[in-house]
Amino acid sequence: MSIKKLAIIASKGTLDWAYPPFILASTAAALGYEVRIFFTFYGLQLLRKNLDLEVSSVGNPAMPMPFPVPVMLQALPGMQSLMTAMMKKKIQSKGVASIEELRQLCLEAEVKMIGCQMTIDLFDFSHEDFIEGIDYGGAATFFEFAGEADVSLFI
Amino acid sequence: MSIKKLAIIASKGTLDWAYPPFILASTAAALGYEVRIFFTFYGLQLLRKNLDLEVSSVGNPAMPMPFPVPVMLQALPGMQSLMTAMMKKKIQSKGVASIEELRQLCLEAEVKMIGCQMTIDLFDFSHEDFIEGIDYGGAATFFEFAGEADVSLFI
Amino acid sequence: MSIKKLAIIASKGTLDWAYPPFILASTAAALGYEVRIFFTFYGLQLLRKNLDLEVSSVGNPAMPMPFPVPVMLQALPGMQSLMTAMMKKKIQSKGVASIEELRQLCLEAEVKMIGCQMTIDLFDFSHEDFIEGIDYGGAATFFEFAGEADVSLFI
Repeated sequence: MSIKKLAIIASKGTLDWAYPPFILASTAAALGYEVRIFFTFYGLQLLRKNLDLEVSSVGNPAMPMPFPVPVMLQALPGMQSLMTAMMKKKIQSKGVASIEELRQLCLEAEVKMIGCQMTIDLFDFSHEDFIEGIDYGGAATFFEFAGEADVSLFI
Repeated sequence: MSIKKLAIIASKGTLDWAYPPFILASTAAALGYEVRIFFTFYGLQLLRKNLDLEVSSVGNPAMPMPFPVPVMLQALPGMQSLMTAMMKKKIQSKGVASIEELRQLCLEAEVKMIGCQMTIDLFDFSHEDFIEGIDYGGAATFFEFAGEADVSLFI
Repeated sequence: MSIKKLAIIASKGTLDWAYPPFILASTAAALGYEVRIFFTFYGLQLLRKNLDLEVSSVGNPAMPMPFPVPVMLQALPGMQSLMTAMMKKKIQSKGVASIEELRQLCLEAEVKMIGCQMTIDLFDFSHEDFIEGIDYGGAATFFEFAGEADVSLFI
């Protein structure tokens, strides 16, 4: 039986959307999959050395809120930080790993991470902003692997 | 010829993003596919007995509006409910099925639905909040099926 | 060796989310893939003759901003247009192709584009609003191709 392969594109960079790529990647790796994640567009934020991810409920009425907050108030200064803090506290109190921990877990499980060079050029990011142990490439690098993958997901 | 398989992750919980998983699943089932949907994060809202999905145009300038509404006003109290009502009316007037109907159609077509237990624990949801006839599991449950699927989609 | 196939669903219609389907499709086509994109929901905006795509940072704290702007101010009249103009200028100054150029490149590379007829009916769009050289169909049309594809992505 050949080894299963999972190819992920991580394109979002908020705290809530940081979970799916790392949870799916670490789970698949634990199941014996060979996994690669291509971080592009806002997803590149997930590779920063110093993660400063925030969550926003504006435009996402599906987010479970600890108490009802009108959309207008959700846009008030400080609300984004407050909701990010509350979400982090909830995650921690439930024993769910932080993004930093899940990312480290993925690296230790040999999940290969590739930062999108085009996005880096576009937003004037620097390789020094990002963690060690990752590669850089473009969409063609993604397809090299995805073309042979059993599961491909755009997150 | 073997039976085709479709694996979907439904991660969003607004009225508009509720359509893609159920439309794609019911269409594929009608074409003879074996289909499984893994509902996780905000997507778990789609499995509630009492659906109360809303739509938001804030942050989505691509939403066709019946008349132009400045972003600031879209955040006013009541606007989210108003736009949800208008969207539902439009959908109904065009003879498009409601989410409840599409979901029921999927169940009757033997689309297998799995609720994410980790999300349920995280947000203190209860199994009683959700419809009958679904299973519960984690990301590993998804990969069991997705690893053999012909099409995998993260929605 | 058989030809690789890529199946994409393009469901979003903002300026930033217009890039992934066209960049991935044109890259895959350049690598010899047979590519089809199914444009549905807000993604149908990407097929308009006259593109008027905007970008919104509201609800997306991951968007790199040239200077910090409180969420409340991001909702002010004119801010969405201002940020769209700044994003377009940045893209142009970095030598990245416009959406119109990438879309044309895809057509020339024989990427097959299919507009979702159900969405067109729902929002009262007209075929005349869209570019030449595309087809129209439904979810079943997508699965005809995706069921045989090596990579399927929901964007």
